[in-house]
Amino acid sequence: MIIIMEPESTQEQVDKVVKHIHDLGMKTILNKGVVQTVIAAIGETSKYSTDQFEILEGVRTVQRIQVPFKLASRDAHHLDTVVTVGKNIKFGGDNPPVIIAGPCSVENQENLLAIANVAKECGAKVLRGGAFKPRTGPRAFEGLGKLGLEFLDVARKETGLAVVTEIMDARDLEMICNFTDILQVGARNMQNFTLLNEIGKTNKPVLLKRGLAATIDEWLLAAERIMDKGNTQIIMCERGIRTFDNKYTRNTADIAAIPVIKRLSHLPVIFDPSHATGKWNLVAPLAKAAVVAGAHGLIIEVHPEPEKALSDGPQTLNFENFRNLVKEIDRLIKVLAPA
Amino acid sequence: MIIIMEPESTQEQVDKVVKHIHDLGMKTILNKGVVQTVIAAIGETSKYSTDQFEILEGVRTVQRIQVPFKLASRDAHHLDTVVTVGKNIKFGGDNPPVIIAGPCSVENQENLLAIANVAKECGAKVLRGGAFKPRTGPRAFEGLGKLGLEFLDVARKETGLAVVTEIMDARDLEMICNFTDILQVGARNMQNFTLLNEIGKTNKPVLLKRGLAATIDEWLLAAERIMDKGNTQIIMCERGIRTFDNKYTRNTADIAAIPVIKRLSHLPVIFDPSHATGKWNLVAPLAKAAVVAGAHGLIIEVHPEPEKALSDGPQTLNFENFRNLVKEIDRLIKVLAPA
Amino acid sequence: MIIIMEPESTQEQVDKVVKHIHDLGMKTILNKGVVQTVIAAIGETSKYSTDQFEILEGVRTVQRIQVPFKLASRDAHHLDTVVTVGKNIKFGGDNPPVIIAGPCSVENQENLLAIANVAKECGAKVLRGGAFKPRTGPRAFEGLGKLGLEFLDVARKETGLAVVTEIMDARDLEMICNFTDILQVGARNMQNFTLLNEIGKTNKPVLLKRGLAATIDEWLLAAERIMDKGNTQIIMCERGIRTFDNKYTRNTADIAAIPVIKRLSHLPVIFDPSHATGKWNLVAPLAKAAVVAGAHGLIIEVHPEPEKALSDGPQTLNFENFRNLVKEIDRLIKVLAPA
Amino acid sequence: MIIIMEPESTQEQVDKVVKHIHDLGMKTILNKGVVQTVIAAIGETSKYSTDQFEILEGVRTVQRIQVPFKLASRDAHHLDTVVTVGKNIKFGGDNPPVIIAGPCSVENQENLLAIANVAKECGAKVLRGGAFKPRTGPRAFEGLGKLGLEFLDVARKETGLAVVTEIMDARDLEMICNFTDILQVGARNMQNFTLLNEIGKTNKPVLLKRGLAATIDEWLLAAERIMDKGNTQIIMCERGIRTFDNKYTRNTADIAAIPVIKRLSHLPVIFDPSHATGKWNLVAPLAKAAVVAGAHGLIIEVHPEPEKALSDGPQTLNFENFRNLVKEIDRLIKVLAPA
Repeated sequence: MIIIMEPESTQEQVDKVVKHIHDLGMKTILNKGVVQTVIAAIGETSKYSTDQFEILEGVRTVQRIQVPFKLASRDAHHLDTVVTVGKNIKFGGDNPPVIIAGPCSVENQENLLAIANVAKECGAKVLRGGAFKPRTGPRAFEGLGKLGLEFLDVARKETGLAVVTEIMDARDLEMICNFTDILQVGARNMQNFTLLNEIGKTNKPVLLKRGLAATIDEWLLAAERIMDKGNTQIIMCERGIRTFDNKYTRNTADIAAIPVIKRLSHLPVIFDPSHATGKWNLVAPLAKAAVVAGAHGLIIEVHPEPEKALSDGPQTLNFENFRNLVKEIDRLIKVLAPA
Repeated sequence: MIIIMEPESTQEQVDKVVKHIHDLGMKTILNKGVVQTVIAAIGETSKYSTDQFEILEGVRTVQRIQVPFKLASRDAHHLDTVVTVGKNIKFGGDNPPVIIAGPCSVENQENLLAIANVAKECGAKVLRGGAFKPRTGPRAFEGLGKLGLEFLDVARKETGLAVVTEIMDARDLEMICNFTDILQVGARNMQNFTLLNEIGKTNKPVLLKRGLAATIDEWLLAAERIMDKGNTQIIMCERGIRTFDNKYTRNTADIAAIPVIKRLSHLPVIFDPSHATGKWNLVAPLAKAAVVAGAHGLIIEVHPEPEKALSDGPQTLNFENFRNLVKEIDRLIKVLAPA
Repeated sequence: MIIIMEPESTQEQVDKVVKHIHDLGMKTILNKGVVQTVIAAIGETSKYSTDQFEILEGVRTVQRIQVPFKLASRDAHHLDTVVTVGKNIKFGGDNPPVIIAGPCSVENQENLLAIANVAKECGAKVLRGGAFKPRTGPRAFEGLGKLGLEFLDVARKETGLAVVTEIMDARDLEMICNFTDILQVGARNMQNFTLLNEIGKTNKPVLLKRGLAATIDEWLLAAERIMDKGNTQIIMCERGIRTFDNKYTRNTADIAAIPVIKRLSHLPVIFDPSHATGKWNLVAPLAKAAVVAGAHGLIIEVHPEPEKALSDGPQTLNFENFRNLVKEIDRLIKVLAPA
Repeated sequence: MIIIMEPESTQEQVDKVVKHIHDLGMKTILNKGVVQTVIAAIGETSKYSTDQFEILEGVRTVQRIQVPFKLASRDAHHLDTVVTVGKNIKFGGDNPPVIIAGPCSVENQENLLAIANVAKECGAKVLRGGAFKPRTGPRAFEGLGKLGLEFLDVARKETGLAVVTEIMDARDLEMICNFTDILQVGARNMQNFTLLNEIGKTNKPVLLKRGLAATIDEWLLAAERIMDKGNTQIIMCERGIRTFDNKYTRNTADIAAIPVIKRLSHLPVIFDPSHATGKWNLVAPLAKAAVVAGAHGLIIEVHPEPEKALSDGPQTLNFENFRNLVKEIDRLIKVLAPA
């Protein structure tokens, strides 16, 4: 931790800061600059908030040197984590990108089976589908609940696809765990710390979406919280961030976040082109972009008739567009150099 | 709802859109422009998502005319809502701004009583204090839990101040309701729809903080959700938003949001200068700014020794600074013209 | 243009708005909704600002239906514009992506020639290099000026590459036009309207970078301004936007802007992975992402010893990394389906 | 300057960084932490870019300790700068806020005189009015040019008010200097380095607006550039920044920037409520907020009939509203404690 003093700070103020650090069991190195003094605190700095030092008199600002996440960091764990779902679906490392596909919301059994069959036929390994849907407005369709989970279960058994579905309420955890292979944490719940804590006590793989305005550090700290409770099977999912321009796209796809996460962390990272763009005709170019930028997978909204979907129709691919996209991705993967 | 067709859309596509609207029981007016056709859908448009129309062939984009919130809107409810806490604490309307003060986290009984006494002496009407604390990092102090609630209760009885404390988990609702006069929903939970739904079923006043990246519409929709479940006693709280510049302030205080909410909605709106700025020396200028911009109250972090606070020390006022601020605010209120 | 009245607006106010529109020579259609009246103005609406209507009594808000750019819009000009530089360098349409490479700043003749030779050998068609450099701080290296232009000219003659260099001052226009094949407008000058006006009067191809906080509409309006003055040879260049997170990347690469521009406009669009990321190790994944998302070209900073570059070293590729990237891009292009 | 090494960096890499710093004539202090080494460079670090160190092998990141602006910094110049315009208009220090008022664009002589007379009568000291207008779209009204300057000159002579008008093109500098008391640099030109350089060579007071997406550091660096060329008479002007929410306000007023600038710099800082909000009914609450937050002045758009203004009508006050605002501000100033 680096404590930067004000240029006009007194020797007495510097001494007090140094004493405070020593009292906490850390060592200090003084850097007396031309303009101001900088104090390096050496030791178990991660145990202390920068707040405790920033508030001392004569301190201008305090900066952490180390990344704030430890378990999620590649510094502590050099090798890639590969999250295995079911027997042989592998996210991460040098494994080829895994395709997750399905409707935004589970609507009925017939429709879900049709989608699941197409997904499987195209090489997808996981079926997505929301049974509990977060909706900004209070009077929108919020999913079929437990019935939706049962429909997913039937589709899973018929096709052999694994299933991912969103959890919004810690009270539903046990029930949802009975029906799903991967727990999805949505963007709006990325800092629902109660929910993260409970998920951390299970051993289900987690698909952790990035919050709308979450920094890379905050997103990895959400993973850190789950890992801290014991569950290390986390798949990061970039889904676009909120910026000043949303006239032509619902969010701004932060494609660079994919290689950034791969450098900072050992966890796998996938991409959601449907939410990142909000427009079906942007799904294909962005999905391809994410794959060549190194994504370990894609999660794509697919529906036989997007214009009749109960939610997210405008960003949903129909079967033909989904088939074409998967073919293009296959061609791209073949020519990519090993990362 | 306004449906804007592509310039090259065909008559057949226009007809299909019109039929779709009629099938849903709404009327249409065709606006044939020089470049493109615009269709107005007239009727109960709030029941339908724009998605359903945006996905139709030949449609360029769809815009809602009405605000998406109804219960929270001043269109439907012209008079100011005054939220009354306890017997005579009144937020909203022409009532003078209510001061809420207290520590970030409840730390111990003695400290809390000292703060509560100073708060009362200065004219504050409500004591704040976190018993359950949301923390970005998993290994930070997360509050005293139920013990913290009990400490608040003692302070409430000794001073007669009302109490506001944060709720993060729907499972704690009953317990927290027993100890608090106002339920605080934090910025990170503004779109925790599960929690909002449960709070909506109580009759406790709610202090609803704006999310870090929430638009005004999304913030009012969060209020709408609580109101839709039956609880109309909501106090909006601006606490700064996330922008591109956070070097010198933790967030960007959106002071204009105060008069904007007052125009759009009948609900009271207060301001949190501590979180909005993150720096104690910016709390006073921003608190005063919010009051003259029309805020119905302030929520301010106060601690006898901010450098020893277990959380948020850098943005916390000591007693002397708090006393001075309250005096200045009193002077300002006296000269303000009626809004 | 759509004029949305307040719910409580009077018939008299509606009549006044309608009369105002008729007085300007446009027609109106009234849409009387359940809650409020909406007036569509039909005619030459692009001649009028929305301000003129928004200020009228009883008006809540005014929305344009048509895109604000006309010359740059695909609505008016369906076929792709192909910008031809020199005899046979073609940006846009179905032409393969053009690689532009070179140092951030021109430093000396020898170094520039070495870079130009490697660029040419790898298949680049255009040499970049700044002679006039915009720098945030007033005491940083600001380029060699005219001498830099002369060095570029020598490199152009020796290698046959075309040249692109930045213009910051309208007073330098004639001199720079004598030495360059493409005029670059930097992000900070995207709304330097004086400069755009002057460039619009030349017939030099223009590489128009997106401003740090420019919306898609504002960026296309900058192109519109140049076109309005007579110069239609414009290459749009996405180079990252400013968002709330810049810890690990200098800007946020908005890859979706590439297909969005291709839909909205007939102009070619390229990508600058160096400025978009600010980190050399992110240049390759993002450059590849942009190409598969449909970019018509790339502009990449290359230097024999990035650690000795006078500017932008951290985002600059050395020769080996540049060679590897170009090879990968070639492989990707071959398998891409026609857009 | 603080150079943070990668955790896995080698001793040889550390040695190379140290040698590089010594070669540049600076001293080093090594901070060997538990996880990684941090090197402090002591000396004339402001002469060197962080880039030069960030690019060295084994370096993770480089941070500056000192603020990047020197002349504009309060560290170097403790006392407030008071910018004096004409004989006795004083911006800064403990002087009361100066009101600048006038139309967005100068439209004609009669109208301008009417506004100037009302401005003077209300206690404004400076008349604003654009003769050269930056407009996003190429076909909007761009001002009367030199004729507008002449109208301003007549109003100046008749009323005794000082005049501020915007400069967009360095070629107009001499002409505009002949007609104006203060040169205004607009938000879009805050990083037009050519223009700043030329203005720096004059001795005219400068009103420097903050760029739409400029950080506090970048804004002060723009002032630094002008000061570096010799002109130290700079008035900073906050006018709202671009954020994710612009549905109900044109920009987000960053009121906290006012006290932040006052702490970081000795330069005066004023506020523009018209551009910061874009809505006339938000001008009064935000103007009052800025004054109590410490602004040294306000610049407000006023027009006898805002609905007929050639630009910015929706954010312009009519005479009655302007008169009322000025009265309220007078009342507030009287009760403010000395800052």
